[in-house]
Amino acid sequence: MKITLIGSGKLGTHLYKAFATNEKIQLIQWVNRSSKKQKTKEGIPLNKQWNPNLKSDLILLAVSDQSISSISKSLPKESFVVHTSGGISIDALIQKRRGVFYPIQTFSEGRTVDFLKLPIGIEAENSQDLKNLSELVKSIDASAVEISSEQRQHLHLAAVLVNNFSNHLFFEAAKLCEENQIDFRLLLPLMLETVEKLKSLEPQEAQTGPALRRDQETIDHHLKLIKNSQLKELYSLMTSAIQKNHDQ
Amino acid sequence: MKITLIGSGKLGTHLYKAFATNEKIQLIQWVNRSSKKQKTKEGIPLNKQWNPNLKSDLILLAVSDQSISSISKSLPKESFVVHTSGGISIDALIQKRRGVFYPIQTFSEGRTVDFLKLPIGIEAENSQDLKNLSELVKSIDASAVEISSEQRQHLHLAAVLVNNFSNHLFFEAAKLCEENQIDFRLLLPLMLETVEKLKSLEPQEAQTGPALRRDQETIDHHLKLIKNSQLKELYSLMTSAIQKNHDQ
Repeated sequence: MKITLIGSGKLGTHLYKAFATNEKIQLIQWVNRSSKKQKTKEGIPLNKQWNPNLKSDLILLAVSDQSISSISKSLPKESFVVHTSGGISIDALIQKRRGVFYPIQTFSEGRTVDFLKLPIGIEAENSQDLKNLSELVKSIDASAVEISSEQRQHLHLAAVLVNNFSNHLFFEAAKLCEENQIDFRLLLPLMLETVEKLKSLEPQEAQTGPALRRDQETIDHHLKLIKNSQLKELYSLMTSAIQKNHDQ
Repeated sequence: MKITLIGSGKLGTHLYKAFATNEKIQLIQWVNRSSKKQKTKEGIPLNKQWNPNLKSDLILLAVSDQSISSISKSLPKESFVVHTSGGISIDALIQKRRGVFYPIQTFSEGRTVDFLKLPIGIEAENSQDLKNLSELVKSIDASAVEISSEQRQHLHLAAVLVNNFSNHLFFEAAKLCEENQIDFRLLLPLMLETVEKLKSLEPQEAQTGPALRRDQETIDHHLKLIKNSQLKELYSLMTSAIQKNHDQ
């Protein structure tokens, strides 16, 4: 499969690495605004702007949500164009042959993300293109799941809860540890087990702690320990939400 | 080391398993209110009530926070008594030789917790007893960390944030998935990576998402998707906390 990859942010760079050395994929060009060379060290043509002479079967946009629509408009109407965003509908693309390739993962600089078995939500306007997207997913050993734009917006919201918001809780915990000369990484096995548990339990079954046991003494003590008023509010809201959910 | 274990809840049962088959530990009795036999299948004496005739070097209380003080009062003043709670001070024990053995982990029924390298916060009134606690930790291949009662209350609060509150976010995400016919477990690689990242990054560096990028369009869209008013409040509070933290 001949592919054009547009975008050199965190996802674009991770996809580049997964594609460039993959025998099943022919990466025709990588559009990378910040590139200063003409080829990558793997020998893939690098362009600051999309080069229409380098034909491919699929143009993959790993760009910001805000740029998807305008880049789509700048590409040929007959191309097969696919974006990679969790939060943007397939309708943001003007091409008749359009699709979505949404890796359900968080990408950071300096982390190597393993695509093996990684679920990738795919969507396409026609069944042949969907099949092609599924092949692309298979070729990087990831796992294709058909997800509509309607479903994907909820999945993206769920991803924000489990990733961004959990990470904020980790940040607050790290701050508490630092303020009290405790190594935050002592909490890592607990944090891993919190997730690992859910391989065999439902989140509701996995819940433990003072909120669930209605241990008001501990709850009050924790609220007294918290200096930051926003964290205090968060603690109260979380506690009441856990209790409310358990009552149902 | 001769040990008496009191308590048969989730932690008590996990500790029983770790001790009963360990060659370095001699489990003298397991006090288990719900037991109907006189011995466990590993041959350890089972008692509904503590049997003072079975002498041990250390009495370990894996009981509810509320029972620690009264059980301590019922035990000999000269015994070495140790509790296992994150939220309770060493002062809840009346013995002169007192201590704390706090495994920084979440324990659920039906999950086998691996003690290998698990950090266990230890504290004792005198240095010889601290050494003994450290030996006990070593004998189950866990990792001893000296943590004072003052520090431990903050660590326990941090553990509530990273475990109980994250789990609540996982619950809300699972509900969103269920309502939209999406398999919640598609989010597991993302959830694992959210934690794994912190082996090499600080939580602040690891943050991504619409709140951090101040992508108001996505934030507004998510708020519109959320039906539950408590979750809406949580979303707004989390978003504003992430933004505030990034401004600092």
